[in-house]
Amino acid sequence: MPILVQKYGGSSLATSKQISTIAKRIAEKYQQGNKVVVIVSAMGKTTDELIELANSITKDPSPRELDLLLSTGELISCTLMAMAIKSLGFNAISLSGAQAGIQTDTRHGKAKISGINPDRIKNELDKNNIVIIAGFQGVTDEMDTTTLGRGGSDTTAVAIAASLKAKQCEIYTDVDGIYTADPRIVPKAKKLTEIGFNEMLEMASYGAKMNPRSIEMGLAYNIPILVASSFNNKPGTIIKKEEEINMDIHEYRNRVSGITTEKDVAKITLLKIPDKPGITAKVFQPISEANINVDVIVKNTSVNNKTDLTFTVKKSDLNPAINIMEKVVKEFKGSNIISKTNLAKISIIGTGMQDSPGYATKMFNSLATNNINIDMITTSEIRITCIIEELHLKIAAQSLHSEFNLDNNI
Amino acid sequence: MPILVQKYGGSSLATSKQISTIAKRIAEKYQQGNKVVVIVSAMGKTTDELIELANSITKDPSPRELDLLLSTGELISCTLMAMAIKSLGFNAISLSGAQAGIQTDTRHGKAKISGINPDRIKNELDKNNIVIIAGFQGVTDEMDTTTLGRGGSDTTAVAIAASLKAKQCEIYTDVDGIYTADPRIVPKAKKLTEIGFNEMLEMASYGAKMNPRSIEMGLAYNIPILVASSFNNKPGTIIKKEEEINMDIHEYRNRVSGITTEKDVAKITLLKIPDKPGITAKVFQPISEANINVDVIVKNTSVNNKTDLTFTVKKSDLNPAINIMEKVVKEFKGSNIISKTNLAKISIIGTGMQDSPGYATKMFNSLATNNINIDMITTSEIRITCIIEELHLKIAAQSLHSEFNLDNNI
Repeated sequence: MPILVQKYGGSSLATSKQISTIAKRIAEKYQQGNKVVVIVSAMGKTTDELIELANSITKDPSPRELDLLLSTGELISCTLMAMAIKSLGFNAISLSGAQAGIQTDTRHGKAKISGINPDRIKNELDKNNIVIIAGFQGVTDEMDTTTLGRGGSDTTAVAIAASLKAKQCEIYTDVDGIYTADPRIVPKAKKLTEIGFNEMLEMASYGAKMNPRSIEMGLAYNIPILVASSFNNKPGTIIKKEEEINMDIHEYRNRVSGITTEKDVAKITLLKIPDKPGITAKVFQPISEANINVDVIVKNTSVNNKTDLTFTVKKSDLNPAINIMEKVVKEFKGSNIISKTNLAKISIIGTGMQDSPGYATKMFNSLATNNINIDMITTSEIRITCIIEELHLKIAAQSLHSEFNLDNNI
Repeated sequence: MPILVQKYGGSSLATSKQISTIAKRIAEKYQQGNKVVVIVSAMGKTTDELIELANSITKDPSPRELDLLLSTGELISCTLMAMAIKSLGFNAISLSGAQAGIQTDTRHGKAKISGINPDRIKNELDKNNIVIIAGFQGVTDEMDTTTLGRGGSDTTAVAIAASLKAKQCEIYTDVDGIYTADPRIVPKAKKLTEIGFNEMLEMASYGAKMNPRSIEMGLAYNIPILVASSFNNKPGTIIKKEEEINMDIHEYRNRVSGITTEKDVAKITLLKIPDKPGITAKVFQPISEANINVDVIVKNTSVNNKTDLTFTVKKSDLNPAINIMEKVVKEFKGSNIISKTNLAKISIIGTGMQDSPGYATKMFNSLATNNINIDMITTSEIRITCIIEELHLKIAAQSLHSEFNLDNNI
């Protein structure tokens, strides 16, 4: 009997009624002759509410305590889901992360799965139970509860699918798949039938709403991931190995798979800082200690042992980042800080560009044609990212979407 | 260093602010040079809210799932308490029932503690942690979470105290001790300094707000239990072995310790049922299957192999109980059902009465003097209970309180 591993996100489980609706979907899959394992997130905004509760006690909650606190969100949703399925007349059982055998390291709040012992899950499946697992959580060797960080339930799902040798992992959410671009920005955006793991990794890191860790795990264990809507039965997008993507159609090769966009980008430039070993660490360590995410970093070749260093942060992090930089720059006599907000990030992503140098030129030309200045550029093997003025984002995305032949049905 | 085991109830932990206040009390005890272990209930009405949530999914939630769901209430309060203590600058750690080594049988919803492995608790105490334990929950051999039933956190606390060989177990709640009677009914009621386990067992079963199981455990392992207020520092009541209660003062011997009262009692009488073996089981099995608690049972000697059987139930259970009894009585031709509501239960409790026959007479006389009719009587070795009209309860309680010398300071 095939094993089906599904994951449902919090927005699909926000109320008792929604849980009961999803329970019917799950039961149907069981009736179709599958062994069914379901990973659930916490209901709706539960995790945020629990964090708020912790913050009402202390501004600086202990990560270990916070993990045990947050883990209750998924315990609640998984027990309710098991109840809902049982009330439909099917056998179901809920398992906490610990009961499901999800072992992690001890990095509270961002633990990594160190191993999975699927014996209990298999045992419950053999008893004809539909198994509902609390996502986002695991347990250390010392039996302390950990959480895997935001989006951790996706990671749980893919890891469970791998440990059960399931054919694929189905992630049901409030979007119905991966699009060639954000449809709010590019109305002609199309849903992709398939996308490669590496492309999706870039998409996830650069705008698409998915946890990169789950995709990395899918890649590592070769578990195809279906992303689809929990609200309808439309076909979603399958994330799988690049080489297994249907290559019959010529257009699938050497092409851009999608455009990702991100607003609210700000940049900070440190002018004329001394270019010597260790300088970048000196700049970025206090930033990361303040929990500020630095995104694009550009450092130019130095002139007279002085260089300009530019990096982007979220708009909301700009002021704290400047405060920190002012202290750092004091050490470098003659240095100066400038900053700019109202920027946006736009990327083209596709394994196609890997061996074809023409993509960058095409992208830059398309932006130039629309009179859009490129502020910064950063690339990976399968991605080209430009920082531009936010007001140009829509035009830029739409013209690139068209330029790279994404407007037509694919 | 002495080990102090404390338990705080849900009404003492209803808000973040209350948790922070209690955290200070706990930290003070630690500063005074104690090793401190604290058992917490769920915040305020959390347990009821979780039950409501389950009922919004299904009218008949699986006991196993319900247990895992309900256990989250205490996980939340214990993590928040640990955070609150840490924010005061002390070391603290929260432990779930499973982490605290509380093993139980598999009777979900009313599990019994089958053993405690206090290694982890001891380990954390040795690391100078204040240890906060989620009450009310344990874990089966199969690592399934169980709950101990209403009031189970008291049981957790006494069991932990026993396993740690603590001198006593302190239970902090919204009352400041055990009273000779309910002060709302008998304004002259006095707080007891000490009370025996057996007396308290009768008190708890007959009106006083405490979990009899925790008292049984205190008795079995000889762990004195202090019941006191979490809102002030007034001395509470210590529940301890009868023989260890201060006997210097003559009045402590052979006396009534307290009067318990209960309103909203209803009774059902089955008239002329055949008196043959198995008849009582036939009557009470369907009642207990319907989860109706039967309290006082009186069966008279039979005449012509027919007897009358009377029992009391809570007023709210009267109608369902009558419905069940009507089916039962159909089998017994010529039998009949009568019922009565607006009754109350009043008991005098005290080890003193064990060897002194005069107590019953004194009680009956006192009620007679006040023109109060006694409907039913039931006794244990250290308790005499009468069922009377509810409208006489106040007068009855006050006159018995005075009759048995409880009005004066003790």
